[in-house]
Amino acid sequence: MKDMNSINSNISEIVKLARKFNCFYLSGLHQGTCKPFLVGGHQVGLIRPDVLKYLQRFPEIFCVTGKYVELNPAFRDYQERTSRIAEVLQTLRKEGEICALKGWRDECFEVSTPFYHESLLEMDRSAICLFGIRNYGVSINGYLFHPTKGLCIWLQQRSFTKQTWPGKWDCFVSGGLAVGYGILETAIKEVAEEASVVGDLAKKLVPAGCVSFYFESERGLFPNTEYVYDLELPLEFKPENADGEVETFELLTAEECVQRALTPQFKTTSAPVLLDFLIRRGYINPENEPNYRHVIELLHVPLQTIYKWPQTEMATNGDGEQLQC
Amino acid sequence: MKDMNSINSNISEIVKLARKFNCFYLSGLHQGTCKPFLVGGHQVGLIRPDVLKYLQRFPEIFCVTGKYVELNPAFRDYQERTSRIAEVLQTLRKEGEICALKGWRDECFEVSTPFYHESLLEMDRSAICLFGIRNYGVSINGYLFHPTKGLCIWLQQRSFTKQTWPGKWDCFVSGGLAVGYGILETAIKEVAEEASVVGDLAKKLVPAGCVSFYFESERGLFPNTEYVYDLELPLEFKPENADGEVETFELLTAEECVQRALTPQFKTTSAPVLLDFLIRRGYINPENEPNYRHVIELLHVPLQTIYKWPQTEMATNGDGEQLQC
Repeated sequence: MKDMNSINSNISEIVKLARKFNCFYLSGLHQGTCKPFLVGGHQVGLIRPDVLKYLQRFPEIFCVTGKYVELNPAFRDYQERTSRIAEVLQTLRKEGEICALKGWRDECFEVSTPFYHESLLEMDRSAICLFGIRNYGVSINGYLFHPTKGLCIWLQQRSFTKQTWPGKWDCFVSGGLAVGYGILETAIKEVAEEASVVGDLAKKLVPAGCVSFYFESERGLFPNTEYVYDLELPLEFKPENADGEVETFELLTAEECVQRALTPQFKTTSAPVLLDFLIRRGYINPENEPNYRHVIELLHVPLQTIYKWPQTEMATNGDGEQLQC
Repeated sequence: MKDMNSINSNISEIVKLARKFNCFYLSGLHQGTCKPFLVGGHQVGLIRPDVLKYLQRFPEIFCVTGKYVELNPAFRDYQERTSRIAEVLQTLRKEGEICALKGWRDECFEVSTPFYHESLLEMDRSAICLFGIRNYGVSINGYLFHPTKGLCIWLQQRSFTKQTWPGKWDCFVSGGLAVGYGILETAIKEVAEEASVVGDLAKKLVPAGCVSFYFESERGLFPNTEYVYDLELPLEFKPENADGEVETFELLTAEECVQRALTPQFKTTSAPVLLDFLIRRGYINPENEPNYRHVIELLHVPLQTIYKWPQTEMATNGDGEQLQC
């Protein structure tokens, strides 16, 4: 429980950071400027006005009403929905006006229904944020107990050539959940590619929960859920990047990690995984963080129930006042 | 990662359990039969019709309108609010009609404002559920790595003379956060009283986050948050109860714990702490629990934002449709 009180000085900064990676959850979501995006009768996303103006040019693909945007319900199956949206995205990509599409990945993410996870279509990873579609990834905390420094955590600096957050500091390893890959499978693939963790060492990956938050940037909307794995590494282990996506790795103490996460050099959307780890390991705790409960709530915002247009259950207190959901 | 797939058979049961301890969050909350309870202009609770009929007999204490129940705003300070409510509760207690008040504790819980935790009043622990006031406690997972059985967890059976959940199986140690006690302080007090964990062993308590859920029973409403601590115990340690509140302790494997939590013999409102522990330790994971994300969401429901009448921010999509909060 070393360092437990030494992070006292950053307490208000931790709440500010949790609010920053939930800027859309706490603010944009309530401003009413985005329209629900419906596919097959289910809300799967939200569309901002800046994106809507492009989609309105394709009325045979997107039905835009005063209340929502719907993918043409005549497209009945996964393949047809996928290909019709892909055509629009390729057209827009060629025009070169949408920032997010400049980072085209040739890697597809799945879009599924909110509750029973029925697959509806797939879409290039770069376009997910234009539709506010839920985004799933895997993040790995690589850590060790140093004989003199206590809990230490490996962080990576992202390559300066990455399409998103180039050169920023990030968790040890992370990666998006692409179509066709399982969750543990993605974790194993990513630790091998990004940090050369293979064989028996990769078998030590321990699943440890997930974090959910709703971030917004100029690029788009990010209702993100990260599946979290912890990996205790030997003291002598030195991560080596194998896929060119990492600039460098650095081993930091828990306290240095908090400091790093609070700088603008840290990838905002990776901070939840790091904060969750520091909470689960007791470094951020009720004694040194007065808004402990609030921070933990902001690591688990209810994305599962955020998209529910049209509302089937109304949550009222009997006088038409909506209480919550 | 032993036992990781052996709990496959209980997957749907885990979701059912998570829905059970959130029965009010998932259902009652939306039915609109409860009225917001306001103190000093802040919503601090919800009142069911069965409780309202008693409170309406005290119009000088509780102002009941069509939309809400307000503690008389003429009561200006902590002491006055506390004593005026205590008088009502003592009257009702003597009449002996309200089940919850039969378990009078002579131990007060604090009622505070939702965000900045300004103290408003205190109230006997037994009455908190009548007003749907947020309830804070501390829970300790006592565990060890057994040389042959892997991860094992100590559970307690509650005394048959306890006012609530007598004879039920429960976490290793837990206790409510009473007025005047800190969070870690309560954890240390409870492990000593309930299991004779003292000295250096108690220093090994590691804070590990919190769980929040909203349960309802005949007795009342339970918007509960438990601060969670993990405590690794030596193989030779045998917990001994010192306060008469525990019937017995039993050391179970992770798999046996899941099975026990799923029986009606387990205290429903202690299951979240156990599930959270089993998730953080990788025993319930994305590979063996298809509704992993949903279960984790139900361990962290947004109690922080649940009480917000009168609503200051309306969450609409621009056409009066409420999206979420």
